[in-house]
Amino acid sequence: MPVLVVGSVALDSVETPFGKVDNVIGGSGTFFSASASLLSPVQLVGVVGNDYPMDQLEPLRKRGVDMAGLEQVDGESFRWRGRYRHDLNSAETLETRLGVFSHFSPKIPAQFKNAPFVFLANIDPRLQLDVLKQVQKPALVACDTMNFWIESRRPDIIELIKHVDLITLNDGEARQLTDCSNLVKAARWIMDRGPKIVIIKKGEHGAFMFKDKSIFFAPAYPLEDVFDPTGAGDSFAGGFMGYLAQTGDLSDANLRRAVVVGSAMGSFAVEKFSAQRLLEITRADIDARVAEFRRLVAFEDEGAAS
Amino acid sequence: MPVLVVGSVALDSVETPFGKVDNVIGGSGTFFSASASLLSPVQLVGVVGNDYPMDQLEPLRKRGVDMAGLEQVDGESFRWRGRYRHDLNSAETLETRLGVFSHFSPKIPAQFKNAPFVFLANIDPRLQLDVLKQVQKPALVACDTMNFWIESRRPDIIELIKHVDLITLNDGEARQLTDCSNLVKAARWIMDRGPKIVIIKKGEHGAFMFKDKSIFFAPAYPLEDVFDPTGAGDSFAGGFMGYLAQTGDLSDANLRRAVVVGSAMGSFAVEKFSAQRLLEITRADIDARVAEFRRLVAFEDEGAAS
Repeated sequence: MPVLVVGSVALDSVETPFGKVDNVIGGSGTFFSASASLLSPVQLVGVVGNDYPMDQLEPLRKRGVDMAGLEQVDGESFRWRGRYRHDLNSAETLETRLGVFSHFSPKIPAQFKNAPFVFLANIDPRLQLDVLKQVQKPALVACDTMNFWIESRRPDIIELIKHVDLITLNDGEARQLTDCSNLVKAARWIMDRGPKIVIIKKGEHGAFMFKDKSIFFAPAYPLEDVFDPTGAGDSFAGGFMGYLAQTGDLSDANLRRAVVVGSAMGSFAVEKFSAQRLLEITRADIDARVAEFRRLVAFEDEGAAS
Repeated sequence: MPVLVVGSVALDSVETPFGKVDNVIGGSGTFFSASASLLSPVQLVGVVGNDYPMDQLEPLRKRGVDMAGLEQVDGESFRWRGRYRHDLNSAETLETRLGVFSHFSPKIPAQFKNAPFVFLANIDPRLQLDVLKQVQKPALVACDTMNFWIESRRPDIIELIKHVDLITLNDGEARQLTDCSNLVKAARWIMDRGPKIVIIKKGEHGAFMFKDKSIFFAPAYPLEDVFDPTGAGDSFAGGFMGYLAQTGDLSDANLRRAVVVGSAMGSFAVEKFSAQRLLEITRADIDARVAEFRRLVAFEDEGAAS
């Protein structure tokens, strides 16, 4: 089954302790698509300027990303320039130029409107709400957001979450949105306002999924070399939603597997710059990493081992 | 089998957003003993002043902590006063008075010298080395340390770790000791210098155990209310070593279970002030929490579920 994503398609310039790239493909919609398309067909809605190197999106198209919803308009593409210091924990934004993205008004092509899985990547919550008016009863709607919108558009986020099944956000954003420093309480605060499922991403410290009274935790994969953390969260979301779309199974057990697939995709994303690593790997690589996640957390019952 | 611990026995005064206590039992030896004694006999070596409220250690003695190695000498007991702010992530030390602890020279009673499991809690590494000269070929020797000793006694720590099987330290300490910001590399750096097993504790973010090429991760239990984080690391170590001493099994599978038992004990420790919660719980409570850890990380193979 296809998954529809609405998000940014950008050009990133990134510097890490391991190197530097200029104007490579980036943005939440791009990372999500590169990740999810390994698992299911993807329908991408976004906007780029007439300066965008469309040929660099060819590998995505070849892998099953339908770009009928990617508008190309006059003006400059969204550009982000950032730097990571030695600990790679937080990006320092050096420059953001929204370009044509500042007037983005998502138009969902008719053939995308009945997508069974919808991911509203991190854009203005008013636009996220607008997308929901254009689609027809998806099986699962998920959204992401960020600190900027929590500060500037809080009432719109509160309205948005009434209408989504799932929200992904990082620990800092969860605390900011709910004013609860404890993540269990923060998740409950959010669930009380709409979403049945809350995923709180803690970067290198893993991710929690809260659903009813159950809590699932998946660690981040302990990589020896994190090359460039850009896009890890969107790649996580792509793996998670792509796996659900592929299996069409929303059972608790399958949601847990989807979190692990998401964590695997996040771990691949950071191994190289841009979406490079995501575009190299195959389904077999994903399966192998999921098996490593299993070994990472496995402990047997007493007596079963030794 | 008994586990021998050499560490501090102190009086703590602690303030958290949830309350305040004065001169309650604390110290690495005390938390370790309160935790480990639920699982195996404990032999405690430490020192207190003649002002120490020995009756408050009675619950430990009743539970099987042999205090033949706890000297009481003239002078004031080790006192620590600290405060935790709202996020409970780091203690602010308001006052440290070492008292009789500043002249501590551990003397291992004859009947403790053949203890099969030895834990060198966080004290001067020169004293930790001295303890090793007094004991006879334990099955497993583990040590802890802290930033203060890494700064002031680095060569002694490097010497110490040549002689221990296992070291527990937190992520900040691991980075400080090894100058590697990546924890996988930090663990390998340490393993190259002696210990076969390295446990890196990340507080609310869980704990890694590194052994040969294998990595095990156990999350911290997601509590809704962390009341007082003091002693969580020593309670973890107590649960870990106590479980190994109880089972006498050093297989990989059992080491993994021991990490989970340690995590469970750390999660109990923070539910109340001082060692209060550790002294209330039973073996059944530990088993129930270990089962919750299993549910927290469990994900099944494809097709096995739904």
